[in-house]
Amino acid sequence: MREAFQAELAELGQLLVSMSVSVRGAMQEATQALLDANRPIADIVVAGDAKVDALHHRVEERAFEVIARQAPVAGDLRMVLTALRIGGELERMGDLAQHVAKIALMRHPQHAVPEELADVFREMGEVAYRMADKATTVLEQRDATQASELERDDDQMDALHRRLFEVVLDDWKHGVEAAIDAALLGRFYERYADHAVNAGKQILYLVTGETT
Amino acid sequence: MREAFQAELAELGQLLVSMSVSVRGAMQEATQALLDANRPIADIVVAGDAKVDALHHRVEERAFEVIARQAPVAGDLRMVLTALRIGGELERMGDLAQHVAKIALMRHPQHAVPEELADVFREMGEVAYRMADKATTVLEQRDATQASELERDDDQMDALHRRLFEVVLDDWKHGVEAAIDAALLGRFYERYADHAVNAGKQILYLVTGETT
Repeated sequence: MREAFQAELAELGQLLVSMSVSVRGAMQEATQALLDANRPIADIVVAGDAKVDALHHRVEERAFEVIARQAPVAGDLRMVLTALRIGGELERMGDLAQHVAKIALMRHPQHAVPEELADVFREMGEVAYRMADKATTVLEQRDATQASELERDDDQMDALHRRLFEVVLDDWKHGVEAAIDAALLGRFYERYADHAVNAGKQILYLVTGETT
Repeated sequence: MREAFQAELAELGQLLVSMSVSVRGAMQEATQALLDANRPIADIVVAGDAKVDALHHRVEERAFEVIARQAPVAGDLRMVLTALRIGGELERMGDLAQHVAKIALMRHPQHAVPEELADVFREMGEVAYRMADKATTVLEQRDATQASELERDDDQMDALHRRLFEVVLDDWKHGVEAAIDAALLGRFYERYADHAVNAGKQILYLVTGETT
């Protein structure tokens, strides 16, 4: 029973790794689509979110089956419910990458963000990638060290978010619509990072049994 | 066993009703704070979100205990996991009401939204209240009829969201910052409505065992 449970939990973990890899790639591609006004890549991100949702559904179904079959209690049950929460966080990260891609699509063939904000969004994309990558590493390699770095990455995202507003509110020459796009985009990256921090905490518990 | 399970599920339902009532009131008060630039009410909403989070935590703990003690399977287990999902949706609705209140606070003593947008936000607040109220009614009275109206309410919220953008993008005289505030606020109401629709679907399953 115990071995069967561990095997099923490991399978759940593998599904979460797939989700994590997907949402890491989704935000990277969404950022590229945004900076290059690249429609085909934006389309791939938007279409790809269905895959993330399908993986999330499988996580939920597998968790249901594990509980129904193994009737885990105490720490074992807590791990399964934690896997469910991680799935929820990752699913939201996928949505946010899709939101970024949709703004790129909406403004195509124009660029949604003016040149003076390109660096901010490039860096936001890099921080987002790094955070999803760390979450994936902790999940895959059960290596807890990287989980502790997520808060610092999140601080960096918040600093970029503030820089974005400084640019938009200081002598902005691109009109109201582009300002709104920039503000919404900034929020999507910032939320992505928040969910990565939440996911990281839950993942740490899943792989070590310890809370931060 | 069966009766004990039903009693525990009913208790979970009661916690969800408390959450639903809280987030219904939170968005109503946030809207009032926004329209009247009323700082004390905005403060109440921001502080009150901790209560919603605490209720959410109790929902998670109770669900854990029910599964551990009763080892439900099949439909019973699905109901407990559904209660968990509803808790997640309601918690997000509370966050969004708090985000609205925070923008009101950030601009206080000024009004965050100019007079020409007051009607749009008043109506958004009314639709949001109605949606949370219907979710509460379905939960409390196990009356499924109101659940089916949530999609229509959500369409109304989307129409208000479009009207907001028409106002902001047409001859806007209030500067970039107020435009960004309006866009973010509009998004918070729109997301609140989306989560209410999701919650409604899950609540319908919880009280009737049927999916839409």
